[in-house]
Amino acid sequence: MAAPQTARRVQRYDTASLLAVAVRVFTERGYDGTSMEDLARAAGVSKSSIYHHVDGKEHLLHLALERALDPLFAVLEEPAATQGPALARLEHVLRREVEVLVAELPYVTLLLRVRGNTETERWALQRRRDFDAAVAALAARAAQEGDLRADLDPALVTRLVFGMINSVVEWYRPKSARGGGAGSRAETDGLADAVLALALDGLRAR
Amino acid sequence: MAAPQTARRVQRYDTASLLAVAVRVFTERGYDGTSMEDLARAAGVSKSSIYHHVDGKEHLLHLALERALDPLFAVLEEPAATQGPALARLEHVLRREVEVLVAELPYVTLLLRVRGNTETERWALQRRRDFDAAVAALAARAAQEGDLRADLDPALVTRLVFGMINSVVEWYRPKSARGGGAGSRAETDGLADAVLALALDGLRAR
Repeated sequence: MAAPQTARRVQRYDTASLLAVAVRVFTERGYDGTSMEDLARAAGVSKSSIYHHVDGKEHLLHLALERALDPLFAVLEEPAATQGPALARLEHVLRREVEVLVAELPYVTLLLRVRGNTETERWALQRRRDFDAAVAALAARAAQEGDLRADLDPALVTRLVFGMINSVVEWYRPKSARGGGAGSRAETDGLADAVLALALDGLRAR
Repeated sequence: MAAPQTARRVQRYDTASLLAVAVRVFTERGYDGTSMEDLARAAGVSKSSIYHHVDGKEHLLHLALERALDPLFAVLEEPAATQGPALARLEHVLRREVEVLVAELPYVTLLLRVRGNTETERWALQRRRDFDAAVAALAARAAQEGDLRADLDPALVTRLVFGMINSVVEWYRPKSARGGGAGSRAETDGLADAVLALALDGLRAR
């Protein structure tokens, strides 16, 4: 089912394809440890043809991190995230967060490994903190509305729930994925169901 | 409260102190990216004085990973982990896992970042899989005994609970820690309580 060789060669010069290569190399070697030479070699193109698409390594990092951050922030604007009881909004956001994570797995993986050595990395860390704060505020609101228990430190449990969700990038490899695709709808639903069941109701039999 | 300078200098040449430096450098730069020169520079000693203690870089990695793995496996042998209903044994193991993680934070952090490029790394990954399988078996047993819900895929929820616990190394910095210490008993208890409350009963108000 491979694409024709010529189509592949043309595609290699797309910014999106360059980004897919860059995100893989950044994740494998670390951003600091990756040179423009490494990127050119991995993409099978010259450095100058990379500069035809982007200003440099940090520009590529910025584009890659946007591809994770933009859909996450878009979730917060969806009607189901902004209307109704806070618990239902929280459930929607966590479910959609899992979906974005699966759909943009390599990009979210890179986002979660960002260190903060450059301006772009610090910007991404701040955006992550903003996203986490928005979800934590929703959880606090749901506790105020009496739908979430109030006996646990909200900051602590928010960290733990994010830890659980973010761990998905470490081990989740969609069974149904083809060539780096995102897996089937049913598979993603099953994962999101398990995350919500565990976070809201826990493992104990009732 | 700093130790006298001379005591520090002597201490630097202990294997334990060398290990503390090595684990920090391995975690910062990655094991592959760390040379014996890097380790000698970070420890403030010569390469030959490192070879006085260990056979080389991989030996240091092995010792560091043992310091995380040995106490984790010791937990599985404790009476409270081997006697009684499976749910109580599971609770004990998860609580003690959090305690080991906090007590040996830098070593468990390194363990969780191991890739598998060397024999020692592959050995550590196998030991991690063995530990995870032992805990997953305990969870399966608790479900058979009717104490854990049976409607969730056990492999999936085990991954998620480990993800939640392992995420602790990413963000937990004990408030009461001095000079890399492990934090107070009460603080560790609070963290373990939150992990167990979330994993077993979830966030929903009842």
